[in-house]
Amino acid sequence: MKLAVIGLGLIGGSLSVDLKRLGFAEEVIGVDNDLAHCKQALDLSLVDRIGNLESDLQEVDMVILAVPVDAILKILPEILDLVKSSTTVIDMGSTKELICQAVEGHKHRKQFVPSHPMAGSESSGPSAAVAGLFFKKTAIICDPSQSGEYHLSRAKSLYSALHMKLIFMSPAEHDVHAAYVSHLSHVSAFALANTVLEKRSDLTTLFDFAGGGFVSAVRLAKSSPTMWSPIFEQNCNHVIDALDSYIDHLKLFQKSLVTRKFEETRMLMAKANQIKQALHAIHQEGGLNGG
Amino acid sequence: MKLAVIGLGLIGGSLSVDLKRLGFAEEVIGVDNDLAHCKQALDLSLVDRIGNLESDLQEVDMVILAVPVDAILKILPEILDLVKSSTTVIDMGSTKELICQAVEGHKHRKQFVPSHPMAGSESSGPSAAVAGLFFKKTAIICDPSQSGEYHLSRAKSLYSALHMKLIFMSPAEHDVHAAYVSHLSHVSAFALANTVLEKRSDLTTLFDFAGGGFVSAVRLAKSSPTMWSPIFEQNCNHVIDALDSYIDHLKLFQKSLVTRKFEETRMLMAKANQIKQALHAIHQEGGLNGG
Repeated sequence: MKLAVIGLGLIGGSLSVDLKRLGFAEEVIGVDNDLAHCKQALDLSLVDRIGNLESDLQEVDMVILAVPVDAILKILPEILDLVKSSTTVIDMGSTKELICQAVEGHKHRKQFVPSHPMAGSESSGPSAAVAGLFFKKTAIICDPSQSGEYHLSRAKSLYSALHMKLIFMSPAEHDVHAAYVSHLSHVSAFALANTVLEKRSDLTTLFDFAGGGFVSAVRLAKSSPTMWSPIFEQNCNHVIDALDSYIDHLKLFQKSLVTRKFEETRMLMAKANQIKQALHAIHQEGGLNGG
Repeated sequence: MKLAVIGLGLIGGSLSVDLKRLGFAEEVIGVDNDLAHCKQALDLSLVDRIGNLESDLQEVDMVILAVPVDAILKILPEILDLVKSSTTVIDMGSTKELICQAVEGHKHRKQFVPSHPMAGSESSGPSAAVAGLFFKKTAIICDPSQSGEYHLSRAKSLYSALHMKLIFMSPAEHDVHAAYVSHLSHVSAFALANTVLEKRSDLTTLFDFAGGGFVSAVRLAKSSPTMWSPIFEQNCNHVIDALDSYIDHLKLFQKSLVTRKFEETRMLMAKANQIKQALHAIHQEGGLNGG
């Protein structure tokens, strides 16, 4: 199969490497507005060559959109306007509702498969691309009945080639799930970083206390604002709700300290410990480095 | 040197292994109220033998307290009552102010060195003990002028044998630093776990979305309530302040979404990104797996 991968960052770059390596693609054409990214992707042999949308779109069997979600919203309808009828278009965006709405009723809607592989990290750009990023993680496909059977089965083979577990849900379901797990984790880390960075102006030795626990909790605060700003914009309402709930849980914990009801504090921690079993299942399936 | 290590969990067990391995101790006697821990520590060769406070205290050159901070508060004055004048007593507690107050003016106060190695993890018990846990991390010694020179220099050699960086501060300074970095990171993870676990009752597939980012952010929620409940109790006021500040930062982020000022959202993330440089310094020094 001949692929065009639009966006040569962590996701697009890693996909290109793996789909070639695993024999899913014979040729991968990379497309990116950022010339430095194009050069890096070539230097790192992530793609076979650099192409452009106008001249290469008619050549490829599949177009993979791995750009930030604001860019997906903009270029997805344009790409669907132009592709030939046998070409499958699939996106990797971290939001799904607005993206699906943007092409609702489009004459080529059946060629589009909205998806989201739950694999990412706080790193970005072609240099962050790694082989095996997707291995044994989960990918979501939304509204499968809206995609043509041929195109859906191609998307399934793509994720199967990457050894990913597939689940199906509506775009709205996807976005609320993503808000509570992935997006909230990012806000918690951004706010933790800002709290500690602000306090450092009083306590200059603050970072001497930063052990592995802090490093882990704050890791996602290194994530790219260019990627995350449009995610928060598109998933605004669910993230606001998730934050309401998170702040409530923090206040409950704080209240147990203020009222000196430390049995309550202990109970809240014991409850939180149940995350062990939930995470154990993920460990079992190998999905440890995704976003 | 002959050591008694009281508390054979992650910290006490790892210390025992390393101090023996690195030639700091000729003999390590383990003491723990939990008989299963004692058996495990022997089976894992963490200590040379299991002893008890009454019969072995007069035999040792150094007593290391690696029990939860409520237990330190209780047994530290009793141990100082009993030790011979050449014995050094050092604690590993995650709080310092109440512990130091508990032995203020004690006739053997000079034999005590209050300390806190910034190395831990979400794991606990003797089976979590590992060699090299402390390597190149930071340890804090509080109020060095309150300890006798001989005992202080012994504590310094202990941390130097472990290849730890040493910093000195007052117990009050220690506790506010620990609140903002270590203790707050734990509360943020406990609350994140509880938010997601609660939401799972509506969204049963929620954990399919848990990639490496979530795993990292929530990691500390696996920590032991037995260890952490007394830490939050003893450092209550500073943790309440740190939580106030954290909740303010979360609300600021949330407000940027509510008012749809996404340029503000982006700016808050760009600010948080400065954590990269701060963490880079820690990476450089190798302190990546501590608590």
